[in-house]
Amino acid sequence: MKRKAYLNKISLSKAQKILLDRFKKYSLETEIINVEESHNRITAQAVFAKSSAPHYYASAMDGVAVKAEKTDYASERDPVILQKQKEFSYIDTGDPIPDKFNAVIKIEDVEVLDESNIEIIKSVPVWNNIRSIGESVIKKQMIIPSYSKIDAYDVGAMLEAQVSKVKVLKKPKARIIPTGSELVSPNTERKKGQITDFNSTMLNLLAKQWGCVVKQNKIVEDDYRKIKNNILDSVKNNDITVTIAGSSAGREDYTLNILQEIGKVLVHGVDIMPGKPIIIAEVDNKPVLGMPGYPLSALLDFNLFFKPLVKHFLKQPYKLPESIQATVKKKIPSSAGLKEFVRVNIANIDDQLIATTQKRGSASMHSLINADGILPIPESKEGIFSNEKAKIYLLKSKEKIKNNLLMIGSHDLSIDVLVDQIKKEELGFELNIQSVGSLSGLVSLKRGECHLAGAHLLDPKTGQYNKKHINDFFKNYQEIAVMNLVNREQGLMVKKDNPKKIEKIIDLKEKDIKFINRQRGSGTRVLFDYLLDENNIDKKVIQGYNTEELTHMGAAVQIAEGSADSALGIRAAAEAAGLDFIPIKKEKYDIIIKANMLKDKRIKKIIEIIQSNKFQNSVKSLKGYELKDSGKISIIGAD
Amino acid sequence: MKRKAYLNKISLSKAQKILLDRFKKYSLETEIINVEESHNRITAQAVFAKSSAPHYYASAMDGVAVKAEKTDYASERDPVILQKQKEFSYIDTGDPIPDKFNAVIKIEDVEVLDESNIEIIKSVPVWNNIRSIGESVIKKQMIIPSYSKIDAYDVGAMLEAQVSKVKVLKKPKARIIPTGSELVSPNTERKKGQITDFNSTMLNLLAKQWGCVVKQNKIVEDDYRKIKNNILDSVKNNDITVTIAGSSAGREDYTLNILQEIGKVLVHGVDIMPGKPIIIAEVDNKPVLGMPGYPLSALLDFNLFFKPLVKHFLKQPYKLPESIQATVKKKIPSSAGLKEFVRVNIANIDDQLIATTQKRGSASMHSLINADGILPIPESKEGIFSNEKAKIYLLKSKEKIKNNLLMIGSHDLSIDVLVDQIKKEELGFELNIQSVGSLSGLVSLKRGECHLAGAHLLDPKTGQYNKKHINDFFKNYQEIAVMNLVNREQGLMVKKDNPKKIEKIIDLKEKDIKFINRQRGSGTRVLFDYLLDENNIDKKVIQGYNTEELTHMGAAVQIAEGSADSALGIRAAAEAAGLDFIPIKKEKYDIIIKANMLKDKRIKKIIEIIQSNKFQNSVKSLKGYELKDSGKISIIGAD
Repeated sequence: MKRKAYLNKISLSKAQKILLDRFKKYSLETEIINVEESHNRITAQAVFAKSSAPHYYASAMDGVAVKAEKTDYASERDPVILQKQKEFSYIDTGDPIPDKFNAVIKIEDVEVLDESNIEIIKSVPVWNNIRSIGESVIKKQMIIPSYSKIDAYDVGAMLEAQVSKVKVLKKPKARIIPTGSELVSPNTERKKGQITDFNSTMLNLLAKQWGCVVKQNKIVEDDYRKIKNNILDSVKNNDITVTIAGSSAGREDYTLNILQEIGKVLVHGVDIMPGKPIIIAEVDNKPVLGMPGYPLSALLDFNLFFKPLVKHFLKQPYKLPESIQATVKKKIPSSAGLKEFVRVNIANIDDQLIATTQKRGSASMHSLINADGILPIPESKEGIFSNEKAKIYLLKSKEKIKNNLLMIGSHDLSIDVLVDQIKKEELGFELNIQSVGSLSGLVSLKRGECHLAGAHLLDPKTGQYNKKHINDFFKNYQEIAVMNLVNREQGLMVKKDNPKKIEKIIDLKEKDIKFINRQRGSGTRVLFDYLLDENNIDKKVIQGYNTEELTHMGAAVQIAEGSADSALGIRAAAEAAGLDFIPIKKEKYDIIIKANMLKDKRIKKIIEIIQSNKFQNSVKSLKGYELKDSGKISIIGAD
Repeated sequence: MKRKAYLNKISLSKAQKILLDRFKKYSLETEIINVEESHNRITAQAVFAKSSAPHYYASAMDGVAVKAEKTDYASERDPVILQKQKEFSYIDTGDPIPDKFNAVIKIEDVEVLDESNIEIIKSVPVWNNIRSIGESVIKKQMIIPSYSKIDAYDVGAMLEAQVSKVKVLKKPKARIIPTGSELVSPNTERKKGQITDFNSTMLNLLAKQWGCVVKQNKIVEDDYRKIKNNILDSVKNNDITVTIAGSSAGREDYTLNILQEIGKVLVHGVDIMPGKPIIIAEVDNKPVLGMPGYPLSALLDFNLFFKPLVKHFLKQPYKLPESIQATVKKKIPSSAGLKEFVRVNIANIDDQLIATTQKRGSASMHSLINADGILPIPESKEGIFSNEKAKIYLLKSKEKIKNNLLMIGSHDLSIDVLVDQIKKEELGFELNIQSVGSLSGLVSLKRGECHLAGAHLLDPKTGQYNKKHINDFFKNYQEIAVMNLVNREQGLMVKKDNPKKIEKIIDLKEKDIKFINRQRGSGTRVLFDYLLDENNIDKKVIQGYNTEELTHMGAAVQIAEGSADSALGIRAAAEAAGLDFIPIKKEKYDIIIKANMLKDKRIKKIIEIIQSNKFQNSVKSLKGYELKDSGKISIIGAD
């Protein structure tokens, strides 16, 4: 007997329709508030002017009030002279027009002769520069219709019309209930198996941003009765209740059963990824949404279900995020029947927007905040083909995406310094990074997915770095510029004080030594294979040869946490992780770009930064770096 | 001797450059705050992970943990049976992997045989469904670079990485000082010559929206010493000081002299309209901005100077509002050497965006909140030619503008009801209104500037409404649909209890009766001229014949405020303004559209609403309306 997974898995659009149709008639309460406090609130009914503005005939200018008829034949040759009090009076903008006058001449057009006389050289029509009663707004006129979001200008318009109170929709009240015995609050020491609950903070902030008042519930352990009581209490006091985790089919996923007991489950399971195990239910005619526990799943579901529901309650349109069309160079596979949402980086290359996928998986916040957009793969398609155009919902502004540079390839700690320095100098562009290894970087550069590639690929025959691989990739094809970023030390990272006495590569053969490798295609993997060859070691004897990490820091952290004894990596990573380091080889880490990009202003700025003392001093403090060649460029020809 | 107006009038771009260059190096203080409270704040330095996540090997699935090797040859024919505890253990997402196991099989792929045995029919690789340490984020990895705006996802990423505090830029402190002895606070009874200060509330809300903490100063009367002391006190305690009004050249405009005394005036007067009389100054190395008193001038200057300054302080890009290109059908004149910002409505007509100017003048908040965008006319141009395309900065979203309908023409109070009803029904579009009179509406409809025109144009020969004029405009050209909105009563609006005993048109000839007319091209003006003709009255004898109001309510309010004795208008306006009403004529008010628009879904909805009881009952309550023909449509042919 298999454990049952989902009650009734259905498509996204169907699930959204079920939710919105069910709560179509749910209506928020209204309240009457001061206009000054109504910014961003929603009018519950039309607002009408209580008074006209101006409420008297007012001067529209600084100048003099006159009787227009008196100026009728004024000219430069035959100026009209007017006498103060009797024939004119000085007036400022907004001043009431004295009854005996009917026009205003602006001060710049007045020649002051003396204390009591002025000269006019141009006739003015009646009502000239006079604001009539109600010119701006007329009493009883409708100023703002129902269900409008009040902006700063609307506040001004209401105050101008002497409206002091406004009837608005109450903010939807939402409570977010994190569940799970494994959860601990942020900033709490975590044991193995304990997870920081940051989901509820994120959902809380988003709900507030969308117009809710949010009560954040304390963490509820996996206890049927406790979760049930928290949901019941929330439903009593709120418009929307959200639970996090427990929506799936684990042994302690109680939410489904609870909602079946106390209400009605409308949807369980939606054909999307991430975000599949969502529950949509009603309890006491109010919506309860059960979000999955994985952060990216919870965030996607929150955007796809909670947000349209709140917008509907607030009578506001639910707008999808801004989208663009971008070309995918490398096929993105996906299962038909499942709507998949893939994080991508976007690069503007030769005025074409190119999308590259990020690591999949629904767990990494870091990959989300580094993504430029989300590419939805429709249920009807088995992925996106290479060179196909796809719609992408943006996570950053279009201008930003068009200006940013994308670097794909090997990782080095100095790149973080570079990225930060570019931000600090406010150059109007950012450098985005995808760490996938040296070879993949070159592949992406050739494919036209990125502007820069980072690589440190050793040619064992010559001992040279990168040149051979670049020739292999680009020869007879394109001029390539190779700029040294840093020279750095590669070596064996080992636990503090080197308890297993690892001294050289050959020691890794020992039975009790657990190695951790880097992924295929990474420069460090190439180097490690070369070192094994050189020492005549069969990779099969290396324990952990097949365990892969994507970055130097990733490998270093595994050692620091005790999951491995050694890895090949750079000194800076060992230093940062508090490990010991046995130097093996000095190597070049280069940035590789197509030579025509050297003319690009942004690339010029990057070269400037790499050559600057500020950058070099920061990198030196990371240890294991030599910067004498940093910023030096050589060209590898196309022939 | 002329009074000096501006110190040094310069172009907008030059003025902006002077301001930003002068305060290029001004730097905000920083503060360390809790990550949970950092939403929308700006990082003052890069943020690095304090811990990896996960910090242990964790199950990525609900399922069973196994030793991968044990499953090696499992198949449907030859399943592998595993024994609880020894060979597998149940595990939920996020649980730590027991040391003896190295893979997880998801629960859906497990056949549970009994309490202690399960069956596996497919082999799994090592590390299957296991999240390795640091998979999401690696300790010491840079999470967020300097000067980044922290969103909800960033907060989550920081909490996941056990970052509890973050160093951010302090919010810029701004104080807004309204000046002017004529000002009174909102919700205060106003006398003649007194103006409600709503500017400071608007600027306050905008500044907060852009990231400032704002202290709103009390209103300061026009007193040199008091204004000076308020500015000095503000400069001491704030990053930016803003004064409102007094920046021009009126007798009581002290700001310029004060700023010259206590600091240095960098700019006085910018070649823009509205917004010309702005002062940019420094006092104690801090910026002081003197805004003009007219609301639209103050708002424009605040957007053009204060906003980029704040964005600069916060190290954020200053983005211009979203813009579109739209075609102008009717020439918009403007002076060369002056950058003019014109409010426009935009209509999407036959998939082309068409812009129409709103009433000019820098005083009407109402025209601002009803505008769709701002069209800047460059200094170098003498306006925008007809059929020229122009860039327009949007005040509403592009989608909204593309969906909305624009109606230009005569005004009727029932149109407010219609506009509100459309909003209330959440139809996904809005009806925008420009009240310019019947004839102008027909001109706009013909020119292709709007979707609907509102008109009540009498043909004196036949006594029919609108038909003749439509024939004149559209005959041999296009099929036109005429839909009755309302039938209504026109008559003489007079003061309550009719103190001047006005009974019929001929009474308007009396010397002591001040009439107020409607603008040329309005249906009511046409009617009035017809009535004068009919009664053989020369328009010259009508006192106030040349004083024009744009709407029925406008005219009614003039009478209620005592500026006039009578006007021709509709009963509903007289009723709303508390006037007496002498009925003269029943008339038809029609909505006129091009016949092909009858197929448009939005038009169909409008017809439905006009025919609904809800609409008709609301209109009836306004008095003077007959709705028996409302929603009835006749077609006037193209031949």
